[in-house]
Amino acid sequence: MSDPLPSGCLITLDGIDGVGKSTQIQKLADRLRSMGREVALVRDPGSTEIGKRLRALLLDSDLNMHRRTEAMLFMASRCEMIEQTIRPALASGTVVISDRFLLANVVYQSVGGDVAADSLWEMGRIACGGLVPDLTLLLDLPVDVAWSRIEEQQDRMESRGPDYLSQVRDAFLRELSKTGGDSKIIDAAASVDTVAENISKVVREWFRCKRS
Amino acid sequence: MSDPLPSGCLITLDGIDGVGKSTQIQKLADRLRSMGREVALVRDPGSTEIGKRLRALLLDSDLNMHRRTEAMLFMASRCEMIEQTIRPALASGTVVISDRFLLANVVYQSVGGDVAADSLWEMGRIACGGLVPDLTLLLDLPVDVAWSRIEEQQDRMESRGPDYLSQVRDAFLRELSKTGGDSKIIDAAASVDTVAENISKVVREWFRCKRS
Repeated sequence: MSDPLPSGCLITLDGIDGVGKSTQIQKLADRLRSMGREVALVRDPGSTEIGKRLRALLLDSDLNMHRRTEAMLFMASRCEMIEQTIRPALASGTVVISDRFLLANVVYQSVGGDVAADSLWEMGRIACGGLVPDLTLLLDLPVDVAWSRIEEQQDRMESRGPDYLSQVRDAFLRELSKTGGDSKIIDAAASVDTVAENISKVVREWFRCKRS
Repeated sequence: MSDPLPSGCLITLDGIDGVGKSTQIQKLADRLRSMGREVALVRDPGSTEIGKRLRALLLDSDLNMHRRTEAMLFMASRCEMIEQTIRPALASGTVVISDRFLLANVVYQSVGGDVAADSLWEMGRIACGGLVPDLTLLLDLPVDVAWSRIEEQQDRMESRGPDYLSQVRDAFLRELSKTGGDSKIIDAAASVDTVAENISKVVREWFRCKRS
């Protein structure tokens, strides 16, 4: 990766649980930092004080809230993160890498719910106040592989089985083109280092296109 | 008011602080109940458990949240009230009278803020999941009269002075036509009983039009 990235860009990594997002985000951040770039990592909900308070609400199983309410709270949290953290970082030339973004809100709130994906995109575009990720990398993996990776470590959000995971994967692939920015599917079935190298290549190529 | 109201309708009363909404809502409810109607009164935020938790967040002055985040939390609360309370009440034939509704969200979040009214309407329509008030009554009053009524009892929401109140009044009048349902301006400068009688007449006339 010899070319410097454009200053102040937002790169998001997304995908179903088990694709190795966290590891790859760390590797991409390390690579960019070793090139002398300022890098900020963000994730949501929970990265702002308001996000923390909303996350507690969203995880409170006594509150049986409507799916649309849930979607709005996730998006309110994202809105706050954008205004408090992402915009100032972008303005100072930082490369912001986000662990999931609006795409994930749309996918997780529409699958198995009664809120249409198009309404969620609409709601989300307003929540994001015009900010779109410059590049979205969708880490993709066959569901059986992803499932075998996460089966041991289920939490509330991941406890719905491989059928659900399959619907989520389909939704990610279906909705990817609507992020408003560039996007690329990354094969996440290879070794960690191979995937990291592919991501590095994609980001470099993306930047080359941006410059030309 | 000799005609019965249609079953299951949503009537909202709105307007700047000081116009006497609470009193008039009570009088309209009493009138409808004396006619044998089931009436439910709702207001927001705070009428659901989630609404209460969000209200605490919204009133927490340590949280300096973005205006768009604030707007989304108000609307999330309204969404929950609609699904938990209003829709079931309407389905059972109850007349629901709401102390403010989406119109107020649009007005208060757009005046003096950086969120456009059109975006708020768009966000709100999604939040409301297609529900629109059947009839919106906007209680209107010259700002100096309203101000003299509320000057003594300021709280955080009302502490911005007559200039602000004037902008809010203008916004109510400007946005009223966009509620998606019927609407009517009520002169709130008269005596409490006269205003109550006017509201009663308007509601009766509205119902007559609905039936014909």
